[in-house]
Amino acid sequence: MTVTAPRGFVAAGVAAGIKPAGGLDLALVATADARAVPGAAVFTSNRMTAAPVLVTRSHLDATGGRAAAVVLNSGNANAATGARGRDHAETMCAAVATELACRPEEVLVCSTGLIGIPLPVERVTAATPALVGARRGDGEDDAAEAIRTTDTYRKESVARRGRVTVGGMAKGAAMLAPDLATMLAVLTTDADATPETLQEVLRTGAADSFNALVVDGCTSTNDTVILLASGAAGPADARTRSDLADAVAQVCADLAGLMAGDAEGATKVVRLRVRGAASAADARVAARAVATSQLTKCSWYGADPYWGRIASDLGSAGIAFDPDRVTVAYGPHTVARGGVAVPHDADALARYMDQRHLEITAELGLGSGRATVLTNDLSHAYVDENMRTS
Amino acid sequence: MTVTAPRGFVAAGVAAGIKPAGGLDLALVATADARAVPGAAVFTSNRMTAAPVLVTRSHLDATGGRAAAVVLNSGNANAATGARGRDHAETMCAAVATELACRPEEVLVCSTGLIGIPLPVERVTAATPALVGARRGDGEDDAAEAIRTTDTYRKESVARRGRVTVGGMAKGAAMLAPDLATMLAVLTTDADATPETLQEVLRTGAADSFNALVVDGCTSTNDTVILLASGAAGPADARTRSDLADAVAQVCADLAGLMAGDAEGATKVVRLRVRGAASAADARVAARAVATSQLTKCSWYGADPYWGRIASDLGSAGIAFDPDRVTVAYGPHTVARGGVAVPHDADALARYMDQRHLEITAELGLGSGRATVLTNDLSHAYVDENMRTS
Repeated sequence: MTVTAPRGFVAAGVAAGIKPAGGLDLALVATADARAVPGAAVFTSNRMTAAPVLVTRSHLDATGGRAAAVVLNSGNANAATGARGRDHAETMCAAVATELACRPEEVLVCSTGLIGIPLPVERVTAATPALVGARRGDGEDDAAEAIRTTDTYRKESVARRGRVTVGGMAKGAAMLAPDLATMLAVLTTDADATPETLQEVLRTGAADSFNALVVDGCTSTNDTVILLASGAAGPADARTRSDLADAVAQVCADLAGLMAGDAEGATKVVRLRVRGAASAADARVAARAVATSQLTKCSWYGADPYWGRIASDLGSAGIAFDPDRVTVAYGPHTVARGGVAVPHDADALARYMDQRHLEITAELGLGSGRATVLTNDLSHAYVDENMRTS
Repeated sequence: MTVTAPRGFVAAGVAAGIKPAGGLDLALVATADARAVPGAAVFTSNRMTAAPVLVTRSHLDATGGRAAAVVLNSGNANAATGARGRDHAETMCAAVATELACRPEEVLVCSTGLIGIPLPVERVTAATPALVGARRGDGEDDAAEAIRTTDTYRKESVARRGRVTVGGMAKGAAMLAPDLATMLAVLTTDADATPETLQEVLRTGAADSFNALVVDGCTSTNDTVILLASGAAGPADARTRSDLADAVAQVCADLAGLMAGDAEGATKVVRLRVRGAASAADARVAARAVATSQLTKCSWYGADPYWGRIASDLGSAGIAFDPDRVTVAYGPHTVARGGVAVPHDADALARYMDQRHLEITAELGLGSGRATVLTNDLSHAYVDENMRTS
């Protein structure tokens, strides 16, 4: 069990007919008694913000950070849909609230799929009674299935620390593919915590996991991570907060790892570390510059240890940089030191580059700033996935 | 005639054995009498600056903006080569200076090719007497040929305004490919002008041409544009400066257009206009965000008018943005207005998208800021070109 592992939660997934190809496409995660509990969320930074993001944010504001349920659909992002899209997102929440007998503001909403296409909201409302009726304590696999788009597997995780359990489900094939272009995650916990505490542990957990995932540098219009806390584990004590923070961070890291591993079209998962930057901010900018470099990503696809491209990416990242201090290593193989090539075992390096998982380290030699990103290569299959929406 | 069209210049190209596959790889553009004339240059902003860029900049500083010759090689970028690389770049200049009987500081140098590999400088010095000996008034095609890497054709242009002639040659397949990763251009003119005037007209000309080219968002370590002025057209008069500025801008635009048209692996040349931004700076950032979006570039390859991706790129560009005001048009076909899809002739749009040259306009509805970039799609062939350096 994952999102229903923490006491006090139920889940469901049904086929509403939103996905043209059929299959489960409407999901629910709710409190077992349909009462609102403390909740928190982090959202995309994209200003082309999708309707469900706007509605979820306004609902959490209206309730002071409490929610009874999250309704999620795949097959349509309800993004770039204007005022009508916002009406549709509100309609989705209201339909669930009617069935659960809670307030519409106590329902949060997430959507994923194509941008700029009106949501067939009548299919969602028609399927909502069946969705809510199907909710149960072991419905998490159906829910996780219903938010998949081009994901090749469901993404679920659970972590226990002390008395606290955190469960989570997510979708996102790390590589933003045409029919998803979104990362969604719903986490549940039985911890007793305020909305403020939940917001802080979620923000911290997301920073080191979801926000360290860089696939193609594109930020979705719909990215949302929601955390709901039932409090069923009993009153908070001295350990609750740190246990909760640890478990949330663990589930976020698990789900992010599952996304990186499912990067469609990708043949490599690359953990890229930048060290020795003048500041942590510089390190993040530098790591992101390398992780979004088309040239460098193509070289990973070709298993080519072409460190000159990485050095070039770092040099053009707009950070403090000294070309005579940069060191680059592929796994244990240091190929450049002080800005120039150094002797290394080319055969062993070639074998290393053929692996699916690569660890690449760039040391700038300027300070103590460091950052890590999880990213992928740029492959023929990525182009295939993204050249047509249909 | 191109770089030798303005009176007072000669050029040559020879095979020095730098390119593993053979062929012309060492070029010279020089004044006919080997005397230093006013010159100017603009360079890459990449801080992983290649040795020839550092040396050319220091030579222009040392001479107060005068030069007698430019020596250029393909097959090796002499970048990420440390102090030894800078010695090699100086050695190239000194070898040419010996043959021309000028000062080493009066020779400028450009290199293009792989990064991080020591330059076989002894091959360059061995070939230098033959290179200098081969210089002549119709040597521009050999010179333009010798700076090609994956370019599929030579890039040359000439423009005349009043008494002023400007000639130019360039290399760069717009799409940064493994064996080049660099844009180089040498322009010559017979105008009588100071180094300061040359710097200003070159900076302006480059801004609207080379600097508006966005292929994969990668900035090379070696990008260099040099302009030399012989003064052979006679003393400057009231019209010289504007004629020179016009002709330099024309040659820069011609050469940039030739690069965009030669983007290897690309199937589309896209002129992307952003209008109605809150500022010109916002418009440039927005245009560049769209032009470097892997998702959007894949959709162009697929001839897919998926405007939602463009809207998403704009929304995540970090500029002032209102999702309810954005309008997107492919050529004459407006597909979204006020942030939502609008009816359009889908068949006519499909035919439009099948063309090689696309004009895409995004109107933000916020102000009068505007910018244009020339860019390309992201294709299978791009991945092929860039996945291996050899």
